[in-house]
Amino acid sequence: MSEQSAAPRRPARTEGTTRLEAFTDGVIAIVVTLLVFELRVPHVEPGQSLLDALAGLTPKFASFIVSFATVGIYWVNHHHFYARVFHTDWRLLWLNNHFLFWLALVPFTTALVGDYTSDPVAVAVYAVNLMMAAIGFTWMGQYALFGGDLVDPTIPMEERRHERRRAYIGVAAYAIAGALAFVSVPAALVIIGGIPIAYFVPNLLSAAESGP
Amino acid sequence: MSEQSAAPRRPARTEGTTRLEAFTDGVIAIVVTLLVFELRVPHVEPGQSLLDALAGLTPKFASFIVSFATVGIYWVNHHHFYARVFHTDWRLLWLNNHFLFWLALVPFTTALVGDYTSDPVAVAVYAVNLMMAAIGFTWMGQYALFGGDLVDPTIPMEERRHERRRAYIGVAAYAIAGALAFVSVPAALVIIGGIPIAYFVPNLLSAAESGP
Amino acid sequence: MSEQSAAPRRPARTEGTTRLEAFTDGVIAIVVTLLVFELRVPHVEPGQSLLDALAGLTPKFASFIVSFATVGIYWVNHHHFYARVFHTDWRLLWLNNHFLFWLALVPFTTALVGDYTSDPVAVAVYAVNLMMAAIGFTWMGQYALFGGDLVDPTIPMEERRHERRRAYIGVAAYAIAGALAFVSVPAALVIIGGIPIAYFVPNLLSAAESGP
Amino acid sequence: MSEQSAAPRRPARTEGTTRLEAFTDGVIAIVVTLLVFELRVPHVEPGQSLLDALAGLTPKFASFIVSFATVGIYWVNHHHFYARVFHTDWRLLWLNNHFLFWLALVPFTTALVGDYTSDPVAVAVYAVNLMMAAIGFTWMGQYALFGGDLVDPTIPMEERRHERRRAYIGVAAYAIAGALAFVSVPAALVIIGGIPIAYFVPNLLSAAESGP
Repeated sequence: MSEQSAAPRRPARTEGTTRLEAFTDGVIAIVVTLLVFELRVPHVEPGQSLLDALAGLTPKFASFIVSFATVGIYWVNHHHFYARVFHTDWRLLWLNNHFLFWLALVPFTTALVGDYTSDPVAVAVYAVNLMMAAIGFTWMGQYALFGGDLVDPTIPMEERRHERRRAYIGVAAYAIAGALAFVSVPAALVIIGGIPIAYFVPNLLSAAESGP
Repeated sequence: MSEQSAAPRRPARTEGTTRLEAFTDGVIAIVVTLLVFELRVPHVEPGQSLLDALAGLTPKFASFIVSFATVGIYWVNHHHFYARVFHTDWRLLWLNNHFLFWLALVPFTTALVGDYTSDPVAVAVYAVNLMMAAIGFTWMGQYALFGGDLVDPTIPMEERRHERRRAYIGVAAYAIAGALAFVSVPAALVIIGGIPIAYFVPNLLSAAESGP
Repeated sequence: MSEQSAAPRRPARTEGTTRLEAFTDGVIAIVVTLLVFELRVPHVEPGQSLLDALAGLTPKFASFIVSFATVGIYWVNHHHFYARVFHTDWRLLWLNNHFLFWLALVPFTTALVGDYTSDPVAVAVYAVNLMMAAIGFTWMGQYALFGGDLVDPTIPMEERRHERRRAYIGVAAYAIAGALAFVSVPAALVIIGGIPIAYFVPNLLSAAESGP
Repeated sequence: MSEQSAAPRRPARTEGTTRLEAFTDGVIAIVVTLLVFELRVPHVEPGQSLLDALAGLTPKFASFIVSFATVGIYWVNHHHFYARVFHTDWRLLWLNNHFLFWLALVPFTTALVGDYTSDPVAVAVYAVNLMMAAIGFTWMGQYALFGGDLVDPTIPMEERRHERRRAYIGVAAYAIAGALAFVSVPAALVIIGGIPIAYFVPNLLSAAESGP
């Protein structure tokens, strides 16, 4: 490993968030596009129609939609969050890489749950993957909001604590889904698929209130 | 799910369109490059030449060209459109994600129609995918042009309505192709392949008129 | 197809080259990374060592190196070229997309020549792919340099004509390699592999002259 | 090959590092995301549980983590390094491409060592790949730091020499791991997996000292 640039050990601060955002955009763009790779063109068996064969892809298609929505929410949240981050440091870069590590696994666990939808292990692995991504995002967010002077200093403390509570709720929901998989697979899937819906509905309602 | 940045529920406005454009560029770059993945190196059977084996890829190659041209048109249109968008908001980010969802499916449906070119279901699925992408782009465009103060305010209303009419024609053409597939597969394919040609010809004619 | 932004038919000029460059960087980054996908981990047969199995990948590895170098040259040339382009228009965007179309095919033709290295058809297809990419880059370059006011106006006419001559030589070399494949496959491969070397040697020599 | 922009042979200097950084971000984003592609959904044999089948992926998962961390370190180092690079020239672009060539191979060698974890050849190939990436980064760094006026001139000579020593240590560690593989595969794997740990521990310790 060539650790050239680490000479002064843990550079205190690098300038701007441009490359962190570009790298994250790249990883997320690839993740959402690779998700579709599990939707392999089916091989039509003798006596079967193509429509039947495509219908057999329904669990894969459903897991694709849930993962696309979930990763899409992370992208929107990352976008909003970094609009308020003024600086990066060594630790923030690595907390972001840690978050991206779990996102990079999502195509694998999405495929797993698409292939073994009724198996508690597959569902639990998927839930744990999404829980770790939520922990990764939360950890990064908490560090930036409370651990240094990296973010816009005018963000009120109350708002920061509000965001923290919401983040903890997301982590807890995935943890519950993962445990619940061993009791009831459908219940666990309802939670995992319901989290993006719980994200969209209040936003859409408030949008409807305030008019188009 | 870590919904940190959504604290004030539906952030009114984020700054600039840079990340939306970079994320879109990334997704489209991956989509057009993955299209070629269906062009698998053929396995030459005994008594067959490589040329024969490659000739068997013709339907896949044709669907690759049509999808590349179609997605390329979206990229050029996205590029032109966002040159006139000044701000983004939560809804525009999600309307763009919705549009990208359908683009991300294009490599799958392109492969499907490349494998089952004569099957009405495959052609209809392909047409519906492209119709949904057209709807996604149109929805996003209508919201930005008519739903808020996100775009350049100097764009004349007449021009906005003109764009809307054109967008509706594109959606309708794919809807007709999807329905027509069950009557005549070749006719449906002619429409789907003809739409990019209908895009290029007037532009090239007007270019020829005005000189190089 | 939603052709919203094409309302005033062939928008005369868009601002800057940022997105064209970002999109091109994305496509080329994916192309060079996908090239390695043909280097599949070999299946070791009974009585064979892993080293033997890896040695069997030599033609694929060689074609990977040639394609990586060739596409890398295009990226460097694209980088230098667009440093002098001030504006883009509809036609330049599409000439760039046309160029990227042929680049996106390179992983496929690289795999083809890696699998069928001694087959004239495979070598000719590879040569034609690279020739079309060279034509694509040349066409785009000629349009920008001679067809409008898109580039830095201070570039001397003599330099523009010099670049044109060099570009034609590259196209001709691939055309010759493609035809030669049917006479002598090794001679064609020497030309295709020699073109990147012919690019590097003069640069390295002039660098050695002028010192480090 | 269209070498249009090389007309004045080896352009002395291009402006800025934006595209070099964007291209590198793209390649690294794809490399880390493709790493997960080797984690194929296992086929559960009769009489086997999914958990057993997943447990069989442990070597692949371990090699995925090591490669993700190693490539992540390169991204962070590249980010820090180029924050101090003011200009690029032809040679720096190619030294960066050379570095990216070895990174692009990492998904292949990671898969190789995941499949043949106990085979000295696989481990040595993996070590040599990472050594070549380290050499690539070191070569690029030395050129920028000592070979021209491309970097921030205020970087003290002592710091530059310090970085060089650290870079040489990284290269040597991978060379030792590659040779050691033929004596003891576990010892070689410990070195390869230990290098990222050796990178993180001092940084985390110094972070703990200075407080959060």
